[in-house]
Order: sequence, then C-alpha cells, then structure tokens
Amino acid sequence: MRVAVIGLGSIGLGMAASLRKAGHDVVGVDLAAARRAEFEALGGRASASAAEAANAAACVFCVVVNAAQTEAVLFGPQGIAEAMPRGAVFLSCATLPPEAARALGERLGALGRHYLDTPTSGGPAKAMAGEITIMGSGAPAAFDAAQPALDAVAAKVYRLGDAPGAGSAMKLVNQLLAGVHIAAACEAMAFAVRLGLDPRGVYEVITHAAGSSWMFENRVPHILDGDYAPKSAVSIFTKDLGIVLDTARANQFPTPMASMGLQMFEMAAAAGMAQDDDASVARVYARLAGLKLPGTDS
Amino acid sequence: MRVAVIGLGSIGLGMAASLRKAGHDVVGVDLAAARRAEFEALGGRASASAAEAANAAACVFCVVVNAAQTEAVLFGPQGIAEAMPRGAVFLSCATLPPEAARALGERLGALGRHYLDTPTSGGPAKAMAGEITIMGSGAPAAFDAAQPALDAVAAKVYRLGDAPGAGSAMKLVNQLLAGVHIAAACEAMAFAVRLGLDPRGVYEVITHAAGSSWMFENRVPHILDGDYAPKSAVSIFTKDLGIVLDTARANQFPTPMASMGLQMFEMAAAAGMAQDDDASVARVYARLAGLKLPGTDS
Repeated sequence: MRVAVIGLGSIGLGMAASLRKAGHDVVGVDLAAARRAEFEALGGRASASAAEAANAAACVFCVVVNAAQTEAVLFGPQGIAEAMPRGAVFLSCATLPPEAARALGERLGALGRHYLDTPTSGGPAKAMAGEITIMGSGAPAAFDAAQPALDAVAAKVYRLGDAPGAGSAMKLVNQLLAGVHIAAACEAMAFAVRLGLDPRGVYEVITHAAGSSWMFENRVPHILDGDYAPKSAVSIFTKDLGIVLDTARANQFPTPMASMGLQMFEMAAAAGMAQDDDASVARVYARLAGLKLPGTDS
Repeated sequence: MRVAVIGLGSIGLGMAASLRKAGHDVVGVDLAAARRAEFEALGGRASASAAEAANAAACVFCVVVNAAQTEAVLFGPQGIAEAMPRGAVFLSCATLPPEAARALGERLGALGRHYLDTPTSGGPAKAMAGEITIMGSGAPAAFDAAQPALDAVAAKVYRLGDAPGAGSAMKLVNQLLAGVHIAAACEAMAFAVRLGLDPRGVYEVITHAAGSSWMFENRVPHILDGDYAPKSAVSIFTKDLGIVLDTARANQFPTPMASMGLQMFEMAAAAGMAQDDDASVARVYARLAGLKLPGTDS
C-alpha cells in the first residue's frame, strides 16, 4: 500500500519505519532536512512536499503537533486535501480538540476523502516497534480501508465511534489522567525526600501499593537516575493539558485536578525546563524547597 | 503467640481473623458490642478491655482511626502501655503524622516496650485473607519478635528504617498518590461523559493506556455499576489527605496536587456523601454539570 507519513518527529519517524518494515511503499515528509535524513538513514524515502507524497497515497498519516498544523497540512497554501486521491484516508494523529477533529472531518469528507480521528498513545519506542495504541473514530469503511497500514503501526486500534471527535475526546481523557499522574508522582517523590525517605525505597513500595500509576512506574525512574533528557518533554503536557482545559471550558465543565496539574507543568516551563523530560516537575518542588534529588546538584 | 488486636473495624477484624487462622491466641478488643459480636461470630474471643487483652500479649496490633485514638490506647485513662508485658511489641496500624509516630515510639520505648510504626495498605478483603501490605519502621529486634504475627496478617512487610516515623511517612506518600488518583479518575470519567464518550469504553481504553492507575482500575467499576456503597469511604480520604497536608505544612512543603485532591473529597463530604464510597467524587462533578452517570438518577 502506498502510504505517506507527514511529520517525522519521534512518533512519526517510528510509524514510518514500522510501515516500511511491514512492506508498505512509504514516503516520509518533513520540512526539516535533518528529520528527512533520519528517515533516509533508516532506508526510507523522504520528501519535503506533502502534496507530492499524498498524490498517490491510499493512506496519509498526519503526525504533526496540533490542530493548526493539521489544518495547514490539509487546507493550507500547500494543502494536500485535493492532492490526495478521492477515497483515500487521512489519519489525524495529533492531539486535537474534539470539535476541531469534527470540523476537519466534515470539510475533508465534503471533498470525497476520508478523515479518521486517530490520536496515538505510547512513546517513540512503541512507535518504532509498530506497537502504538490508537484511540480512533470515523467511518468503519475508512477504518477497513486503512487496516493494513494500521496493523503495521499499532498494537491496538480502538474504534470509539463512527465519526471524528470521539477519538480525540478519549485522547484528552487519557492526557488529563496522564498529566495529573505525572504531577502527582513528582509531588509525592519530592515530599518523600522532604520527609527523609529513601527515593528508591519509595519507588519499590509504591509500585507494589495502591498509590501506583502507569506514569509513576514509567517516570519516577528518571527522577531516581537524575536523568531529565527528554523522553517526553514538559512542553507536551503544557500543550495537551491546555487543550484539556480549553475543551472543558468550551463545554462548561470544571476540571480542577487537570487545572492544578497544568500549573505544575507551567511552573516547570517557567523555570526553563520546557524542553526537559516531564519528570522535571519534581525539580520544581526540589528547587522551591531546597531539596537534593538523586543525581542533581540542588 | 498471644496477640491482642485493638479496634475491630473492617481492617482490624480481618487482621484478627487472619491471626486466629494462623493459630495465634487472639483477643479482639472493641468498645462497640456489635464489633465484638462480629469477631465472636467468626469464632474469635473478644473483650471490651484493651488493658486486659494486652496484659499477657506478646504483640498488640492497634488498628484505630487516628493518632489521638492511638495515643489514648497507650496512655489514656485505661491506657495499656504499662499493662503490656515488658519487651512486648505494640504495632501502630493507623495513618499517623510521622512526628506523632516518633513521639509515641519514644514514650513507649522509655517504658521498656517496643513500638513499631506499621501503617497498612490494602482493604478489608486483603485483611481477611492475611495479605495486607505493611509499610513499617522500628527496631529490627522488635520486627523479629513480631514476625510470626506479621506473617499471619501481611503478604509483604517493608522495613523502611530502624525508628518509628519512616513507616508513617511512606503511608502518607501512598495516600497522597491514592487520593489524587481517585479524584483524577472521577474527574476524567465525568469529563468523558460530558464529551459524550461511553463510560465502559473509556474504562477499557484507559486501563490499557498510559493514563491508568491502580485506583482508576479499582474505583471506576463502582462508577460504571452506579454502586456507591462504601468499600472505602470519602471520610477516609478527607482524613488521610488532611494528615498529608498537615504534615506538609509542618515541614514547609507545598503539595498543590494533594491540596486540590482534598478539596474534591471535601466537596463530596459537603454534598452529604462522607460515608459513601470515595468514587462518589464522580457524583460531585455530575451533580455540578447535570450529567447522568451509569445507574444514578442524576
């Protein structure tokens, strides 16, 4: 199957590589030459032109940062909406407000191309292994058409509804939880250090107790190692919890836990850690309280 | 081994029963005749007098509500501190501020009795199965002396330090996480319903995604079933997050996530749900936003 992957960031690159590995005819697109070179180093074919790549593609995965970029890919000056073959499937993988997914889906559908609302979960390693999770919604026929490509990138594809919107809504629910859990993990670990507990002992106990979470298990090792090189950056969560709060406000719905979680990531960003690992929220507490975390100077 | 269990609430009752099952000579103590009758119905021996029960006990488990009750059990008008045999071990199982555990430990130690700081994790079912988790600290010799009794009640006993305080500190770290995770789970589920998602679908996706937590997995089924009969009540978390915040403040340490979590449980309590299941926080969101949760009228 001819597939285009637009956006060769850490997730897009992994997805493009997984599609190649599964035998698809893949073109990876990125405006940045360095990103294209990364894909080419893996044996892939890269292009700077999305329209050219989309021209003969049966499926186009759009793995960009946000709704504005997704809209630009489809309908901007070099937009691909009409370059895509009629009946081709556009898979939107960024985290979008559900209403944006619905609007883009209607606009593309009116042109006779399919829009699937397919945000992803799972980091770069899962993308490279072809094992991401997709929280999807859209027309069953479009899912069926895209199935060979979805099989190549995902361990699990949830079909959550017959129209765009539900996939993005589910992604927001997941990000609300994930963001709050990271902030809570960082608060708990810093509090533990303040109380004189051994951080490795805390990790051992909590991961076997009712206080555990997927994020606690995954992120606290970064704190224990004093390793804040970004596996997933603070800026991802200022963005995604920002979308959660925008969407909640648009729906007149109070989300105090997510609101406080966002504030913790904003504090980390304000402290100059926006591009550091999201476990850096622990360093915000440590800096405020003059604590010594493992492997750090302060 | 002669063992006394003071406080036959849901956890104490299960621990007393587990100790009996393991062959220990157990006296269960509660001021409430109904609680004593429950233990007697399981074949146990019960008493209203803690001092009498402690008189010949090698180990005394104190499974009461808080620090004030624990102090009263030891040093109140009918306190057992001097009734316990010299060298006997007192195991404090309530959630206490670490400084309270340290102070009680020093006071009891000065009288020649051992104090172990042994708060528990795991609910009534685990207690009845003899499989609770103990987050403990205190003199190794006291742990060794109490080992046969600990083996009867716990699947896992963590020894986190040689003096009282560390066990209680670890329990607070766990409760901070557990409380925040329950509040986040309730916020996320109500938000999902507001966005039009199917709650059972959300549970299926999230429990397989990075947004999951032990508490999400454990409590959300109560929401899906519309079952708010208390497996663990809102009042437990207004109490325990209250201790977290008191302890944080005493240590000049900011805990914004726990603070917001406590507010959510306070809202539930204010709405008349203090004795309902802690998943009732979801009903606070639903009531505010006029949502229909599964199995509820509003």
